[in-house]
Amino acid sequence: MAELWKGAAVNAVLNERLRSEVETLRSCGVTPQLAIVRMGERPDDIAYERGAIKRCESIGVKVCCHTLPADADEAALLAVIDRVNRDVEIHGCLLLRPLPPQIDDTRVRNALLPEKDVDGITDQSLAGVFTGGGVGFPPCTAEACLTILDHFGYALQGRRAVVIGRSLVVGKPVAMLLLARHATVTVCHTRTQDMPAITREADLLIVAAGKPRIIDAPYFGQGQVVIDVGIHVDETGALCGDVDFAAAEPLVKAITPVPGGVGTVTTSVLVQHVIEAARRQQPSGK
Amino acid sequence: MAELWKGAAVNAVLNERLRSEVETLRSCGVTPQLAIVRMGERPDDIAYERGAIKRCESIGVKVCCHTLPADADEAALLAVIDRVNRDVEIHGCLLLRPLPPQIDDTRVRNALLPEKDVDGITDQSLAGVFTGGGVGFPPCTAEACLTILDHFGYALQGRRAVVIGRSLVVGKPVAMLLLARHATVTVCHTRTQDMPAITREADLLIVAAGKPRIIDAPYFGQGQVVIDVGIHVDETGALCGDVDFAAAEPLVKAITPVPGGVGTVTTSVLVQHVIEAARRQQPSGK
Repeated sequence: MAELWKGAAVNAVLNERLRSEVETLRSCGVTPQLAIVRMGERPDDIAYERGAIKRCESIGVKVCCHTLPADADEAALLAVIDRVNRDVEIHGCLLLRPLPPQIDDTRVRNALLPEKDVDGITDQSLAGVFTGGGVGFPPCTAEACLTILDHFGYALQGRRAVVIGRSLVVGKPVAMLLLARHATVTVCHTRTQDMPAITREADLLIVAAGKPRIIDAPYFGQGQVVIDVGIHVDETGALCGDVDFAAAEPLVKAITPVPGGVGTVTTSVLVQHVIEAARRQQPSGK
Repeated sequence: MAELWKGAAVNAVLNERLRSEVETLRSCGVTPQLAIVRMGERPDDIAYERGAIKRCESIGVKVCCHTLPADADEAALLAVIDRVNRDVEIHGCLLLRPLPPQIDDTRVRNALLPEKDVDGITDQSLAGVFTGGGVGFPPCTAEACLTILDHFGYALQGRRAVVIGRSLVVGKPVAMLLLARHATVTVCHTRTQDMPAITREADLLIVAAGKPRIIDAPYFGQGQVVIDVGIHVDETGALCGDVDFAAAEPLVKAITPVPGGVGTVTTSVLVQHVIEAARRQQPSGK
């Protein structure tokens, strides 16, 4: 029976600390504020937005939402980002993506001020993740994986970590974060040959494959820790991850559930970044 | 007996193409020009500079050298970079590093215009390597590894590549370039446990460990391709790589020699980047 590494346990500790940091900032007259920018009405975006608003409110972080129609043009979106950039009361901005096809993703994400980029979408933030430099924040989902491992006392140095997926939202940044923490890191993807032979050798398996329950019994080895980044609605309407939980659970040492795993910690990491951004944006901040 | 994948064979083809590209640019009135900026008199820097000048001249690329004393201050170095940035006749700049301790490396490398950054040192270039985006150039040494593999017809898709080393000059960028070419990539480093067990499983081994002949017999597997990025002077005064060549040669399928391997192709890739930068900087370039 695997240990269940639940997001709630991580959040209980993390959110308590975040509440106390917000109190300290408020005592200096600063209320951290997040802007959420959304185009259209994609149910995923709306669900994530709703979760973020609720978490921010419970921690004492203000939220303002900017919603544009799905067919708005790039100029309209850039105007919103410009307003966010210039508003000194807004410390962080979450831009829900993917953006509609009429929008140039690269131009828009790099229009955001790097210091307000709390989800690691600008080139400057991504360069920071790659170089290990100090500017900006990593993508929240990638950092959430590390936050969970740290909470449960999992030491990374010298461990063999295998990451399934090479996206800029999870796969590549989480690989860089693991490498910075001295893990030996392998990145697998759709073109990988005989992936189960590789993943079975891992001490730590981070799954961001993007397909429901695609990682099943042959992929797991004894004593592994499995972090499941996926979230999908299956054919019965239930939520599930990229991992076939029932197949993994008897084999591995520990696993994050879906729902209630990485996703909920991601929201806390987002709030943490907003608070940290607010702190850095104060005249005495650093 | 391993095949010897020599840089000279790669350069014979590559430099022929580069000469023809220079001719085309000259016919439009453009002579590609590289600025080399060096602080102090480190023998490694001087040797690399001399090689670059010679290669540029043989291909028809102009070079101008800016040399500062090792104890010059940051303002003096930034003034040189500013001159390079503003000179429309200079298309690329090679800044020899590491810089002396009184210089802030991050500030200086990001002072260079990204479009003149022919050795992938700015955050914008590195972000491009990480994201797979179009801006800038990868570090020349990292790209040279891929250039050699391509020349000898080594298909990367689905291959297991192991990179030893996680520097920003080779290890991390070459891992990203291999990943973009659909290899399954593992990055090992000094904290890796039982590295030979990992490297023996590789189809392709890229060695940028930074220590003379440190990768020896236990690390190699049958049929591997080994790219040796290191270059050192051994105790007898001879040049050697990170790989113990005598140990590798009977085991592997192919190996790059030192000297005469990656280093000489790196110089050609530098010239290639200067020519490409010159092309992009023309009004009709793209």
